[in-house]
Amino acid sequence: MTNSICTPAGFLAGGIFCGIKASSHKRDLALILSEKPCTAAAVFTTNRVKAASVLISQQHLEQSTIRAVIINSGNANACTGEAGMIAARTMAELVADEFAFPASNVIVASTGVIGVPLPIAAIESEIGALADSIRSDESGEEAALEAIMTTDTRRKSGSIELNLNGKPVRIGAMVKGSGMIHPNMATLLGFITTDAVISRTMLDTALRQAVKRSFNRLTIDGDTSTNDMVLIMANGMAGNIPLDSKGQDFDSFASGLETLCIRLAREMARDGEGATKLICVSVSGAESEDDASVLAKSVAGSALVKTAMFGSDANWGRVLCALGYAGLSFDPAATAVSFKSRAGSVPVCKNGESVAFSEESAKRILSEDEIDIEITVGTHSGRATVYGCDLSYDYVKINGDYRS
Amino acid sequence: MTNSICTPAGFLAGGIFCGIKASSHKRDLALILSEKPCTAAAVFTTNRVKAASVLISQQHLEQSTIRAVIINSGNANACTGEAGMIAARTMAELVADEFAFPASNVIVASTGVIGVPLPIAAIESEIGALADSIRSDESGEEAALEAIMTTDTRRKSGSIELNLNGKPVRIGAMVKGSGMIHPNMATLLGFITTDAVISRTMLDTALRQAVKRSFNRLTIDGDTSTNDMVLIMANGMAGNIPLDSKGQDFDSFASGLETLCIRLAREMARDGEGATKLICVSVSGAESEDDASVLAKSVAGSALVKTAMFGSDANWGRVLCALGYAGLSFDPAATAVSFKSRAGSVPVCKNGESVAFSEESAKRILSEDEIDIEITVGTHSGRATVYGCDLSYDYVKINGDYRS
Repeated sequence: MTNSICTPAGFLAGGIFCGIKASSHKRDLALILSEKPCTAAAVFTTNRVKAASVLISQQHLEQSTIRAVIINSGNANACTGEAGMIAARTMAELVADEFAFPASNVIVASTGVIGVPLPIAAIESEIGALADSIRSDESGEEAALEAIMTTDTRRKSGSIELNLNGKPVRIGAMVKGSGMIHPNMATLLGFITTDAVISRTMLDTALRQAVKRSFNRLTIDGDTSTNDMVLIMANGMAGNIPLDSKGQDFDSFASGLETLCIRLAREMARDGEGATKLICVSVSGAESEDDASVLAKSVAGSALVKTAMFGSDANWGRVLCALGYAGLSFDPAATAVSFKSRAGSVPVCKNGESVAFSEESAKRILSEDEIDIEITVGTHSGRATVYGCDLSYDYVKINGDYRS
Repeated sequence: MTNSICTPAGFLAGGIFCGIKASSHKRDLALILSEKPCTAAAVFTTNRVKAASVLISQQHLEQSTIRAVIINSGNANACTGEAGMIAARTMAELVADEFAFPASNVIVASTGVIGVPLPIAAIESEIGALADSIRSDESGEEAALEAIMTTDTRRKSGSIELNLNGKPVRIGAMVKGSGMIHPNMATLLGFITTDAVISRTMLDTALRQAVKRSFNRLTIDGDTSTNDMVLIMANGMAGNIPLDSKGQDFDSFASGLETLCIRLAREMARDGEGATKLICVSVSGAESEDDASVLAKSVAGSALVKTAMFGSDANWGRVLCALGYAGLSFDPAATAVSFKSRAGSVPVCKNGESVAFSEESAKRILSEDEIDIEITVGTHSGRATVYGCDLSYDYVKINGDYRS
């Protein structure tokens, strides 16, 4: 039994193959259902080209409480015009009809190829089976996890349990995302459930803070998708004292949510398309946390740093180069760089210049599958970590012919 | 005999192996010399981390006329501290001593690995041989071209002849650059010579305009180097009526310079690290030329568009996605996309949606080695073309272990 979106009380999930991924016959349609209406909050892609699902979900989130999320993979339903909007609305209506609540209670998410009409008939014909699977099977979350994947090679989910003033409160999450990922509000699909009693404002505050330090500090290939969203739904079934203002309980909740989101962001980076290594870039000594994040993103996003990491090559000059074009003023002469992994630690640059190091031991350290690039840029207190991955032959292979 | 930097009257060049590229024994030191003092203008990298050669050259350009350029490959002399500054100054002094003019008359350029001390002794011991080769051999420009290359697979040079009020005026150029290339002031090494009589102000104006529409519209991997510069030297030996204000002759000169720079920017994109295809992205209908350039750069820089082009996959959704995250407001519903090449033309998107097209003919068109992605985003008059390349396995291979 996975620790996932059904760990909090009152959430059900399922996933089936409805016919969108016609060539692979893999699961392509997922549903998350809450027994009770949920307070919800979300962040969406900042791409000017927004999928129909994003536009519809933004409307629904404004209008009402949320009961369910329907997600299809294999087709992004983006750049699909009015027909795409109708299809997204239909997805919400189909769920609403099955469970007898308004369509505005349903969030819609899609992921897959852009610009191809969504085969809505396939969803129409199988929605009954999906609804039945949820009614009959309380452990459908594995199937749901599978059904939201595209080029993902791992299922990415988790949960956390908190004690809020004596009451156990749980947060669960599942995410998908492997390519077209670059930090910009939200750059993936992420669905988070909780049984906490929490106001919409506080839920929104907690989500934005957590996303800022997790999914927005994730870069795989610099492309911000048209379909991104991270949604959190709170159904209140834990019966805790309502979290409706700041305070110790809210801090515990927000901190738990952040921990879970960071864990999943790391999993996403590790599962980046073609990735062989998780690369965590930490910058400290910057003037602010935001500055540190901008500098770290520039390094984690550099094609030359990423290929060097793939090749286990301690080419720290590329790290300094990427810091230099991040668009912030920083002092190269105050900069130090170390590479770390399970195999050890090697300082390679101090005061902006080379320090003597053993190429052999650097190679050994960089040959691990989880690398930390630790950078100090001064003596201020701003620090941030960004999660990325290396750039390998397989990234090219996966994306050279994605549609067929 | 190449059409290159020695095509204009009064310029000499040479290139030798001095010992920096110790493992390959390829030429690594080049010199360009003008018989007469030159008016000069240049643009330099905007990277905060600047190579010693950039800092020294900026000083020299401020101080005086220019007689010579010395260029080494195999070592960027960046992140090399005070020793690097001394080495760059020494390079200028060595040339100055050979030809008996002040060191401030010399521009210094370096390209290669960052963060490794420059073996200045190798240059010191061979500068005499390089100077001799120039004194004795008037056709050393091929050797100079070779000596500035790093991962470049082709020599990139050209020239153009203009008729300014009855006087023939020539412009010649050689460039290097293959990786760590992204438009940002100047993102490569480019050396341009001309025998025109032209004021420094007008030379600077012509260069900035030409660079804006050529080298600054070039992206290979999104990394802006620490060492970039484009330099133009004018020695006045053509004897034309001085170009010291705007007018027909200046327009001819500026337009000729732009044509030459665009030709070389295309050559650089075609020779991008690992590239199998030149990708020209043209955006029209934008509100301004600058807007069109920003949109086109976003498409040309997208790892997902680049890998799709490598795979000859007409995945136009990625084109729209990249337009969407360019940071400009634009109307997806007014957007059209076509792919073109020698093998034909295929419209794939109109009004932001798919248009029916033959996958077979699209594949045939995209299998050529020069692809145009033509994008219309509205009905305004802003248009720009950006030059890029595909992203292949070989990019990863070249950069996975560049230092060894």
